[in-house]
Amino acid sequence: MGIVLNGGTIVTAADNYQADVRIDGEKIVAIGHEIKQPEDQVINVDGCLIFPGGIDPHTHFDLPMGTFSTSDDFLSGSLAAVLGGTTTILDYATQFKGETLKTGLENWHVKADGRSYVDFGFHMAITDWNDQVAREMTDLVNNEGISSFKLYMAYKNILQVDDGALLKALRQAGQCGALVCVHCENGDVVDYLVKEARANGQTAPYYHPLTRPPEAEAEATNRVITLAQIAEAPVYIVHLTCSGALEIVVDAKDRGLEVYAETCPQYLLLDDSYYRLEGFNGAKYVISPPLRSVNNQERLWSGLGSGAIDTIATDHCSFNYQGQKDLGINDFSKIPSGAPGVETRMGLLYTYGVMTGKLTINEFVAQTSTNAAKLFGLFPRKGTIAPGSDADLVVWNPQVSSTITVEALHQQVDYTPYEGFNQKGQAKHVFLRGQHVVKDGQLQATRPTGIYLSRKPFLKRKVGGNV
Amino acid sequence: MGIVLNGGTIVTAADNYQADVRIDGEKIVAIGHEIKQPEDQVINVDGCLIFPGGIDPHTHFDLPMGTFSTSDDFLSGSLAAVLGGTTTILDYATQFKGETLKTGLENWHVKADGRSYVDFGFHMAITDWNDQVAREMTDLVNNEGISSFKLYMAYKNILQVDDGALLKALRQAGQCGALVCVHCENGDVVDYLVKEARANGQTAPYYHPLTRPPEAEAEATNRVITLAQIAEAPVYIVHLTCSGALEIVVDAKDRGLEVYAETCPQYLLLDDSYYRLEGFNGAKYVISPPLRSVNNQERLWSGLGSGAIDTIATDHCSFNYQGQKDLGINDFSKIPSGAPGVETRMGLLYTYGVMTGKLTINEFVAQTSTNAAKLFGLFPRKGTIAPGSDADLVVWNPQVSSTITVEALHQQVDYTPYEGFNQKGQAKHVFLRGQHVVKDGQLQATRPTGIYLSRKPFLKRKVGGNV
Amino acid sequence: MGIVLNGGTIVTAADNYQADVRIDGEKIVAIGHEIKQPEDQVINVDGCLIFPGGIDPHTHFDLPMGTFSTSDDFLSGSLAAVLGGTTTILDYATQFKGETLKTGLENWHVKADGRSYVDFGFHMAITDWNDQVAREMTDLVNNEGISSFKLYMAYKNILQVDDGALLKALRQAGQCGALVCVHCENGDVVDYLVKEARANGQTAPYYHPLTRPPEAEAEATNRVITLAQIAEAPVYIVHLTCSGALEIVVDAKDRGLEVYAETCPQYLLLDDSYYRLEGFNGAKYVISPPLRSVNNQERLWSGLGSGAIDTIATDHCSFNYQGQKDLGINDFSKIPSGAPGVETRMGLLYTYGVMTGKLTINEFVAQTSTNAAKLFGLFPRKGTIAPGSDADLVVWNPQVSSTITVEALHQQVDYTPYEGFNQKGQAKHVFLRGQHVVKDGQLQATRPTGIYLSRKPFLKRKVGGNV
Amino acid sequence: MGIVLNGGTIVTAADNYQADVRIDGEKIVAIGHEIKQPEDQVINVDGCLIFPGGIDPHTHFDLPMGTFSTSDDFLSGSLAAVLGGTTTILDYATQFKGETLKTGLENWHVKADGRSYVDFGFHMAITDWNDQVAREMTDLVNNEGISSFKLYMAYKNILQVDDGALLKALRQAGQCGALVCVHCENGDVVDYLVKEARANGQTAPYYHPLTRPPEAEAEATNRVITLAQIAEAPVYIVHLTCSGALEIVVDAKDRGLEVYAETCPQYLLLDDSYYRLEGFNGAKYVISPPLRSVNNQERLWSGLGSGAIDTIATDHCSFNYQGQKDLGINDFSKIPSGAPGVETRMGLLYTYGVMTGKLTINEFVAQTSTNAAKLFGLFPRKGTIAPGSDADLVVWNPQVSSTITVEALHQQVDYTPYEGFNQKGQAKHVFLRGQHVVKDGQLQATRPTGIYLSRKPFLKRKVGGNV
Ligand SMILES: [Zn+2]
Ligand SMILES: [Zn+2]
Ligand SMILES: [Zn+2]
Ligand SMILES: [Zn+2]
Ligand SMILES: [Zn+2]
Ligand SMILES: [Zn+2]
Ligand SMILES: [Zn+2]
Ligand SMILES: [Zn+2]
Repeated sequence: MGIVLNGGTIVTAADNYQADVRIDGEKIVAIGHEIKQPEDQVINVDGCLIFPGGIDPHTHFDLPMGTFSTSDDFLSGSLAAVLGGTTTILDYATQFKGETLKTGLENWHVKADGRSYVDFGFHMAITDWNDQVAREMTDLVNNEGISSFKLYMAYKNILQVDDGALLKALRQAGQCGALVCVHCENGDVVDYLVKEARANGQTAPYYHPLTRPPEAEAEATNRVITLAQIAEAPVYIVHLTCSGALEIVVDAKDRGLEVYAETCPQYLLLDDSYYRLEGFNGAKYVISPPLRSVNNQERLWSGLGSGAIDTIATDHCSFNYQGQKDLGINDFSKIPSGAPGVETRMGLLYTYGVMTGKLTINEFVAQTSTNAAKLFGLFPRKGTIAPGSDADLVVWNPQVSSTITVEALHQQVDYTPYEGFNQKGQAKHVFLRGQHVVKDGQLQATRPTGIYLSRKPFLKRKVGGNV
Repeated sequence: MGIVLNGGTIVTAADNYQADVRIDGEKIVAIGHEIKQPEDQVINVDGCLIFPGGIDPHTHFDLPMGTFSTSDDFLSGSLAAVLGGTTTILDYATQFKGETLKTGLENWHVKADGRSYVDFGFHMAITDWNDQVAREMTDLVNNEGISSFKLYMAYKNILQVDDGALLKALRQAGQCGALVCVHCENGDVVDYLVKEARANGQTAPYYHPLTRPPEAEAEATNRVITLAQIAEAPVYIVHLTCSGALEIVVDAKDRGLEVYAETCPQYLLLDDSYYRLEGFNGAKYVISPPLRSVNNQERLWSGLGSGAIDTIATDHCSFNYQGQKDLGINDFSKIPSGAPGVETRMGLLYTYGVMTGKLTINEFVAQTSTNAAKLFGLFPRKGTIAPGSDADLVVWNPQVSSTITVEALHQQVDYTPYEGFNQKGQAKHVFLRGQHVVKDGQLQATRPTGIYLSRKPFLKRKVGGNV
Repeated sequence: MGIVLNGGTIVTAADNYQADVRIDGEKIVAIGHEIKQPEDQVINVDGCLIFPGGIDPHTHFDLPMGTFSTSDDFLSGSLAAVLGGTTTILDYATQFKGETLKTGLENWHVKADGRSYVDFGFHMAITDWNDQVAREMTDLVNNEGISSFKLYMAYKNILQVDDGALLKALRQAGQCGALVCVHCENGDVVDYLVKEARANGQTAPYYHPLTRPPEAEAEATNRVITLAQIAEAPVYIVHLTCSGALEIVVDAKDRGLEVYAETCPQYLLLDDSYYRLEGFNGAKYVISPPLRSVNNQERLWSGLGSGAIDTIATDHCSFNYQGQKDLGINDFSKIPSGAPGVETRMGLLYTYGVMTGKLTINEFVAQTSTNAAKLFGLFPRKGTIAPGSDADLVVWNPQVSSTITVEALHQQVDYTPYEGFNQKGQAKHVFLRGQHVVKDGQLQATRPTGIYLSRKPFLKRKVGGNV
Repeated sequence: MGIVLNGGTIVTAADNYQADVRIDGEKIVAIGHEIKQPEDQVINVDGCLIFPGGIDPHTHFDLPMGTFSTSDDFLSGSLAAVLGGTTTILDYATQFKGETLKTGLENWHVKADGRSYVDFGFHMAITDWNDQVAREMTDLVNNEGISSFKLYMAYKNILQVDDGALLKALRQAGQCGALVCVHCENGDVVDYLVKEARANGQTAPYYHPLTRPPEAEAEATNRVITLAQIAEAPVYIVHLTCSGALEIVVDAKDRGLEVYAETCPQYLLLDDSYYRLEGFNGAKYVISPPLRSVNNQERLWSGLGSGAIDTIATDHCSFNYQGQKDLGINDFSKIPSGAPGVETRMGLLYTYGVMTGKLTINEFVAQTSTNAAKLFGLFPRKGTIAPGSDADLVVWNPQVSSTITVEALHQQVDYTPYEGFNQKGQAKHVFLRGQHVVKDGQLQATRPTGIYLSRKPFLKRKVGGNV
């Protein structure tokens, strides 16, 4: 017995058309007309759009930050995700100093296995590069389903690696079929400017963006692309925020380099004026890289329209305003850096991208789902609506209007950066591998059934690439 | 009774997956597994790829050139097209001096109606701009299914329009839902250089590229994009050939302008050394813009990979070497400018694009079919494989290898620019609106059943665009 | 008997140092210490700077505009010039439709000979290109001391030439040792936008800049540089106003092309908000190209600092507000386009360039004098302070402060665009070929003694260029 | 009693004209005609050019390299310099690990004082950055006449500093009036590639350029300019070699940043094909950055012509082929990196720059002398020919032709990279502060009389800059 979604409009990265979708077990098995089998259940979705389940390729659930962790763990984070229309997340499993990658990975399996309402994979964040790690990288690609790794050019003395390590990691990745994801900010610059600000008694949240200038991001972006070119490896720029960095990515793609870029809703919709909010409210927007001046937004939208930016992730990394963010009340540099977003991504982009004409509906699907699937070894299992793919489907009701409030959200954090934003459309039904997990906007699943996704290696274009 | 294609791999601009396709009448009705209806005919296509029928958005069939016409008319040209895997062509119907657009259009219907093996539409080429033409433009969009118009910046005193006309046409088009296609070369420069060359007694074919330098193309490309920006209209650059012009397109897209670009296989695969072929053989390659130095090729491939170039057309405009090209034996400027290509486009791009890893299989489909359908108001009827779309399908057998020779081709012209090129793959079966017109590589249709395609207006991104 | 200026600081394009200058007859004969000859007159200039006499390479004196002429003729214009510290002007002698260049030149000699307080040369503005003109060009270079010619890309149906004429003129100029000066705006675009505005009843002065957008200037700049490259000729861009055009010049210089650019004080110091002045006052600022948005100013200053812009001229073209500008009271397109500036150039640039640190004192001299002398065949006779050069000297008193008012100026026009601007410094003494024509800021000359300057051909860099 | 040079043509960065020069004591006192005083000695220099004495702002004399030093010390290096027409050198005094700057400076005074035939100053090379060094920097500017400091982005674990140190040094320098000179290559990249090459058994000299790719230079150039922008400090890029780095400098100047660049004759005249010379001869050309592919040369010449590159230095750092270079016979990375050039700079640039029309004679003077004087706090004492300046003069006889051979040179090293190159012109006479140290091309000085030059602070443009 299958399920037939009847009467909707199917939207993929390339197409949109009216047709029924038939689900059998975990898979989509047919699309079209006259495809119903005798015993199938039919769900009417007249007037709705059907998207591939969203893929959020950048989350930090249950991330330890010294004495505490991010406020969302896999349970709460994945619950929020699925209600927002996201059915797969890729979380950054982190190797801390002194750990092997294997240890880091095992730690993350403990956090996530059996505790996620969406399917999930891990990027492996490397903070302690050495020869052993190089060997493990290949092992993780071949045996653990990890085909992407992250390195940080910022967070001096904590996460930051030097250019030598970065180059070696890129070379290794290029050879073993991995994609390196990089946080691009010049950590030495940030470290210097933060120290200087503190020495000058500059403690308010609005010193956060002033000590992490866009030039430091553009510089690091240029540097890692140079390293990737020398290493003959692809590279993925996480959370690109500014026109300076975008120019560099555009130029690199134009020269035929395999450079990919991600941005986030916060950089498209918010700007650095938020750091001047009354009292300590600016702390809610302390994220890294910081929000930029408003003129960058138009350029990011253009970059999405031209294909220069490939994916839109959230960098969901939630800290409560009360009790966590306020650790930095007397020193902006002590404010834990990060903000929530996994639940609001699809709705915000539909509202402020598609409905405004900045994104076509196909670009919306590509950037919220398909491209991430292709880049991170999940395609065509995830990221599209096609026979044979997992039945991860979002039935989107475009008629619903709502206002975003922290009360209405399921993220386990005491604020949302988008408080009061209007939203058009809603994830009415969500299917995860054929399970009807969200129904009429309400959680239907009785327990977290998301599974770990062992991902395929990155396929370079020159051997018949996948993007 | 329908037809089921069983066992193939469906490829669209976004997806590739194994599934059956069911055709009923002229349409695709279902895709997937278990979709066969009791009385359906099943055609086994194991091991084959199934592409949307190719769309060639730039042909010149039966184009008058003074005392003669291009050697291919709609009968021969469309026959060649369909055997090569192309099921739709967009031909440039031309208004000559003194004619109304309506007259030009009627002339083309006479040439094409009932005489084409593939479906066809017309762009309207305007060579005599005036206020009457402006009004007709809107009429053709609204009532004749013509949503694209062409203007020439070259061919002084013949086809060339001045910047004022170009700007008015762009403004008018932007307002009435049309897309302006532009041949970008500075005609004054060409005119001057040709006269200078002739005055110097420089008559050989290799003076053709020297009198049409890439700078003259880049300049015109920059100019028309500026005009389009001022007119707030989209613009489509036909047959882009060189890195200079490409840089300008990249920059324009990057700034969020609605600029689209087309290239052709000849600019990807041939270069200006062909003009130095023995004897008068260089004349076979006299096309405008001319073939460029070889270093441009890599940049064009990069432009396809990054999305800067949207479509690959042929600019099929065939003249026999004997009796037509040789009119210029004593004066390169008298060589009729143009070359054939409608039959070889899909095979060359599959071979030299997909098989080399320069294009993904999805990019190949997008650039040979889907993007043209979207830009020219044919999507989703044409350009994809989806329930509800026309059953224009190419079953591609990737196992066949062959060598291109003029004898083996069906174009009605006495040479091919690609003589001796290897080709991987073959259009084994072709379906045109459900009709099985090519079977095992042989024409199956007994008469030309292609129909005129009335096209929808161009949809600008800002009103929820279609690309 | 000579004259010794004693106690000043000599400033050239490269140097500044304290020394005496000795003048004998029309020439500078010695610089240094202990150079006084027994019978010399000594003039003490303690605390003053000594500049080479300013060269304004772009004026329109006594230019006919239909039923009237510019309000300044050579008498009043040159008087204003010399009092402002300019000792040489290059005026645009104009060939009108149907005239030979020779006729145009003779007309200008009638206007200027014996009627100028400063030395003068003529650029020849060509508005009617034909083969005869091409021959005359060479003749004027060889026999009439005219080594620069101007063509207009704007003013459709009046002054504008097409790209063919422009290319031919560049080629001819490149061969006969002339430099082509070009007014870069796309005249077709302007013509269209003006007609559109008028059709819409948009008549106020602020439609002037809206109908001459910076994109139309950048486009034309790019076009003429392309033509110059093809012609293998140098080119000089007059009155560059905007960042878009500057980028193109920077890029061209960077590629080694012989491209030179001029800007004017109005584009450095005024902006398009002036068109919104109360009543009809915006008309005072109707010049072409128009004033731009304020952000362009910083880029122009950078261009001066980096050497991308070579000269600062005035484009002095004065019309009275009462009786001339007001012809356009009901239609901005009827406002005569132009504004005065020849008297205020040196003071404004010293005040807002040198005193603010935007220009070094040497750049100031280079851009107001030396570079024009080099580009236009007057160096080293003019443009520097060196033994053997004409004794054209400005003794600048940096201590004087004043406010610019129309009453205080000598230009024969009823307003100044800089009304109320502060000025630092004053031309205390001016020497023209050794004659002490301005003394203590007052005219000392009893009659106009400026002479016609027969200029040398332009020397291309590749034959041992002069810049 | 003075000296009068009679009959020559004086050339400065702006001017060239015929005049006499009168020297009195150490200074130029007058220029012009009729300037001779009764008892003056007159030297006839008919037909000769008179240049300001050359300034070579980048030498390494007597530089320790582990167990040995560069083959030229101050005696031999300065002797070669003066015979080649250079009267001032700026050597890189180096602070080694663990030393104070003061110690480093004292060490260099010991090497140089009383042992130089030309005047000299020191840049201070910092290899061990700490807070003490920051304080010393200001002290050296204020009290020791050192207004420029060098940091290295390459030579990992030896000279390389991290971005934090670089940023701090730039900030400090910007505040205390110093100019930071930077060796721009990404040392981590070089370190990685060298290790990789060695691991692969790649030992020949031509692996030197392959392990120091131009991308690593362009990246570092971009990075340090970003740091300088953040620090609000000027920066001077030493030995720029490639088009990638040049583009970045052009762009920075275009944005108004105070960025200056130096190149060297070897990058203008030699290319990476020299590394493939027979046997071990490629070792003679092992310098860092390495020689580049030949297409970079044209771009560097363009950069000199457009003003993007400010100075031409030698990076004279000589090692004998026998006994020093051959330490790397089995491992290219052990070849001491550097080559001689201080003697040949002026002649090569005159021959291959001025005589070919690539440089004007004024640009030649600016780039070999004036600009260095201005940037490094020596102007107008050095770098020009003006009353009051030091009488450092080169009387250049343009009639002499010669061939460069190691035998004919005075550098104390057993080869010249320019063996067999033709040279036009010769330094016939050289005056150092009025002393006639070279006469008819022969050393006239009987002992080294060069003195230490205490230099003025760097003057930023915004406070009325000096360039
Ligand atoms: Zn991050
Ligand atoms: Zn993150
Ligand atoms: Zn064409
Ligand atoms: Zn065509
Ligand atoms: Zn003008
Ligand atoms: Zn003018
Ligand atoms: Zn170095
Ligand atoms: Zn060095």
